[in-house]
Amino acid sequence: MAGEKEVKTEEKKVERPITAEELAKDFREHSVAEFFKKNRQMLGLYGKIRTLTTIVHEYCTNSLDATEEAKILPDLEIKMSELGTEYYELTVKDNGPGLTKETVGKALGMLLAGTKFHRMVQSRGQQGIGAAGVTLFSQITTGKPVKVISGTGKGKTFSLELTIDPKKNEPKIINLKDIEKQFQGLAIQAKFKDVLYRVSEQGPLEYLRRTAIANPHAQITFVDPFGEKTVFKRSLNDIPEKPTPVKPHPRGVTVDELITLAKYSDSRKVGSFLKNEFDRMGDKAVEEISRKITFDMNKDPRKIGWEEAEEIVKAFKEIQFIAPRVDALRPIGEHRIKTSLESIVKPEFLSVITRKPQVYSGGFPFQVEVAVAFGGEAGRSTNGNNEKKEGIEELKRMEIMRFANRAPLLFDGGACAITKAVNSIEWKRYGVQDIDNAPLTIFVNFISVYVPYTSAGKQAIADEEEVVEELRLALMDAARRIARHIVGKRKEKEKLEKKRMYLKYATEVALAVSEMTGKPKAEIEKKLLNIVMKRLKIEEEEENKVNDVSDEEIEKQLEKEVKKEEKKKEKKSKKGKKKG
Amino acid sequence: MAGEKEVKTEEKKVERPITAEELAKDFREHSVAEFFKKNRQMLGLYGKIRTLTTIVHEYCTNSLDATEEAKILPDLEIKMSELGTEYYELTVKDNGPGLTKETVGKALGMLLAGTKFHRMVQSRGQQGIGAAGVTLFSQITTGKPVKVISGTGKGKTFSLELTIDPKKNEPKIINLKDIEKQFQGLAIQAKFKDVLYRVSEQGPLEYLRRTAIANPHAQITFVDPFGEKTVFKRSLNDIPEKPTPVKPHPRGVTVDELITLAKYSDSRKVGSFLKNEFDRMGDKAVEEISRKITFDMNKDPRKIGWEEAEEIVKAFKEIQFIAPRVDALRPIGEHRIKTSLESIVKPEFLSVITRKPQVYSGGFPFQVEVAVAFGGEAGRSTNGNNEKKEGIEELKRMEIMRFANRAPLLFDGGACAITKAVNSIEWKRYGVQDIDNAPLTIFVNFISVYVPYTSAGKQAIADEEEVVEELRLALMDAARRIARHIVGKRKEKEKLEKKRMYLKYATEVALAVSEMTGKPKAEIEKKLLNIVMKRLKIEEEEENKVNDVSDEEIEKQLEKEVKKEEKKKEKKSKKGKKKG
Repeated sequence: MAGEKEVKTEEKKVERPITAEELAKDFREHSVAEFFKKNRQMLGLYGKIRTLTTIVHEYCTNSLDATEEAKILPDLEIKMSELGTEYYELTVKDNGPGLTKETVGKALGMLLAGTKFHRMVQSRGQQGIGAAGVTLFSQITTGKPVKVISGTGKGKTFSLELTIDPKKNEPKIINLKDIEKQFQGLAIQAKFKDVLYRVSEQGPLEYLRRTAIANPHAQITFVDPFGEKTVFKRSLNDIPEKPTPVKPHPRGVTVDELITLAKYSDSRKVGSFLKNEFDRMGDKAVEEISRKITFDMNKDPRKIGWEEAEEIVKAFKEIQFIAPRVDALRPIGEHRIKTSLESIVKPEFLSVITRKPQVYSGGFPFQVEVAVAFGGEAGRSTNGNNEKKEGIEELKRMEIMRFANRAPLLFDGGACAITKAVNSIEWKRYGVQDIDNAPLTIFVNFISVYVPYTSAGKQAIADEEEVVEELRLALMDAARRIARHIVGKRKEKEKLEKKRMYLKYATEVALAVSEMTGKPKAEIEKKLLNIVMKRLKIEEEEENKVNDVSDEEIEKQLEKEVKKEEKKKEKKSKKGKKKG
Repeated sequence: MAGEKEVKTEEKKVERPITAEELAKDFREHSVAEFFKKNRQMLGLYGKIRTLTTIVHEYCTNSLDATEEAKILPDLEIKMSELGTEYYELTVKDNGPGLTKETVGKALGMLLAGTKFHRMVQSRGQQGIGAAGVTLFSQITTGKPVKVISGTGKGKTFSLELTIDPKKNEPKIINLKDIEKQFQGLAIQAKFKDVLYRVSEQGPLEYLRRTAIANPHAQITFVDPFGEKTVFKRSLNDIPEKPTPVKPHPRGVTVDELITLAKYSDSRKVGSFLKNEFDRMGDKAVEEISRKITFDMNKDPRKIGWEEAEEIVKAFKEIQFIAPRVDALRPIGEHRIKTSLESIVKPEFLSVITRKPQVYSGGFPFQVEVAVAFGGEAGRSTNGNNEKKEGIEELKRMEIMRFANRAPLLFDGGACAITKAVNSIEWKRYGVQDIDNAPLTIFVNFISVYVPYTSAGKQAIADEEEVVEELRLALMDAARRIARHIVGKRKEKEKLEKKRMYLKYATEVALAVSEMTGKPKAEIEKKLLNIVMKRLKIEEEEENKVNDVSDEEIEKQLEKEVKKEEKKKEKKSKKGKKKG
């Protein structure tokens, strides 16, 4: 009420309106570093526990990207020490190619600089913001620079300390020294205040555990602030083939992107421009396009206007192209996901699905990997940790493990396309009565040359229509494959329960009848059991008749539904083509 | 499986590792415009319906901020026309101060430029990104510039067309013309493709309806693509007093911010610097600080280092300051919220709470307004629209109306501090058995000179501890005030049900007894009714005895809980002071 009164009395004052000219005096421009320094929430740097996990995330994804890029089997060492109350030091060391004296400043001390933003290739980082944002956070909470050692393993090792000038978005490097010691890789040591280490579902340890699940070729060693060491061992000794950048796929390219590409193209004619700049564009496709457009394909691509580009994009949509090249995408692989989940959640039933690569708006290829694990240790224990208590039946809740380009997503699940897709499935149809309270682990890895994150903090994938549709289809297909097991298991349980009840009843009745008639109990019991078994069989048959479907038929039915939804999707995309 | 096989065969190749020097060649720097052009999801510009609502949001918040700043009663006209499939034109006209020829380019054609980012004052926009992001979206989907007319009402009217150069993050202005016509305000006309108009919970109409609820001093006219006109009439003719910028409050200021302020200060001594740059800093406080720090207060503020700044911040936390000045904050006001909700949701019970202003990390003052409405038309109809169907009892779901600085938040609820606070309340204690399925509208307005959004799209508030705590306390307090009504209503309903049953039973029994005994039915029924009424009374008394609390006692109990939580919060903040 106080606020209200105050407003009322002040409203009485009459002042002259302020003019546009007066307001103009207050106009300022700001650097992107100032922006994210103020809006550190947008980088996921908020909440004491979350911030520490986000920091580990930024450094580890960079290390994994760098080793992958350099074709090196990754070996990561993460060490955390407590320096004071909510005050920690973090060291992250990798065996990657390292950074040069020229690039280290940009990589760790300048926002929106890096190698990943402009390339069409799957990588964990994609913005050139994360690590520099962490440097900013370190300096605004401790006033101290970030220490870096970088080496190529051939004697060229150097160390330096680094901060950011937020007004200019530029790195400030001090104490640059050459070091005699041999070292290959990058080691970063930084201090942070207002953060907290906890062993929790959203803490650094769980983050690293999930990183290991999705990156079985990586060796990850973690020493926590209590000195406890955890090693996530490499379970695969092959270096995954490095994904190679691809050109945009014609399906999904927008008019604006086409014009931008044309503007910077070296090609002299529209025809050669199309062939040079797009994936899956052969002579036949170019010829088809030339028949669909109203202008000369020999035109200079730098001179095509909006309407002409619109004609080309329209033609793209009318032509059947081969699916996008998968060179830029590196799925984890069905076998590896299976091995990982079997060793970790030991499920009773497990199905793993890798969908074919798709393209969404912008010509970006993407692909979805899904696993559904049921029973065993699948699901999240509701008592907080995963320890089983003797004698108490464990209550499990559904657990969604989200990954984007093999990096775990631990936060902002509520705003993520993966969560939305999971919640959009009618789980009852797959034998899961109460999805929230089911022993179910749902594993989803979304890979793309560009992940449409909702925020620079990279924790939730935007629910773009094409993305949610693909996720849904993958989930439906994976769920379908284990539905008959889940349904079967539930039926089995119900049948056993019923049998147990009947048998108990039969024994008691036999005793009573025996006393009444004087006939031997065993004989009566045998007869009664026969009746019970017959009865059970009839009930089962009737039940099947009522449901009118066998388990196999359930599976077939669900398969049909997946196909139906796929057809719907196809139709929609064709309709889109006509419209476009 | 296909992906997996492919990876395996390719893994056999052995190539030499790539070096840091080779990677360095791929390093690039990017403009913030390029960044948001690619990551338009981060601006909320994704999803066909959502994008259109976000566009309306960006323009309307700018108009409301501008009129408030210029002390003008806002009059907004929004018109939408369909130009083709998923292709619309939007015109937004306000009666604000307009923009100058110099500022219009920056306001609509340059990201991270504007008047709001650096000022400590409550405003709907705060980043200098939104409207320029919309210009980007218009140009990448249609290739067309945004048209602008701006006038001061004194003959100085001009029109121009504008696009953005993403590489440079700079506006490109064409067709700048002076116009003879008198006009005061800003009119923007822009075209968009890949968007869709729908009358839905997340559509532009609902957005404007909620804007009207939280801004009763604004007149908003909307013409939808079907030509239908909706006028949200001004219900309040006073111009709300313009909030004035405040200095940061010493409680919550970080060391880094103190150093930044000191660096740009005109003061020659630390003492005068503190008095000049902070809210609520009097001579007495400065003297107290001087006794707590180890260096001379006459020192040049530009020369204080991290350790010295840390001493000052520590001292800030040990001193009792007056609560932050509220000049920068403009709550809607309890009376206005009440009037708005009563006219719209016509609830049976309503409580409105305005909490006192608080400060969170960074010295930013903030304040929470909460209303809880129960019954009547409160809640969301589960049949999709709000129409009542004859004869069918309506099923209602809880509805949360979220606002930040009076601007409605329609998206990303799952990631928002407001939703988290609502879900953290034990609603059963307030008489609400199933919160998800209750006829409940929860209205929350979070106001601050800086709203910690999770993304540049400004749809969810980060769940910073201080923010969630305040929201919780406000919700508990508001819920407490109507809990006895809700509990009472439920009890009443149960009592009526019981009475109805007993009475029915009494009539039947009376008939049977009358037939058996031959005595008159009416007499027996009267006796039976007496017994029933006595029985009901006894039961009620017993129930009260079992619960051991009357309705008033419930309320008292709940009030105690709010106070307890408040004390806990106080203790924590004191503990924080000691630690710091």
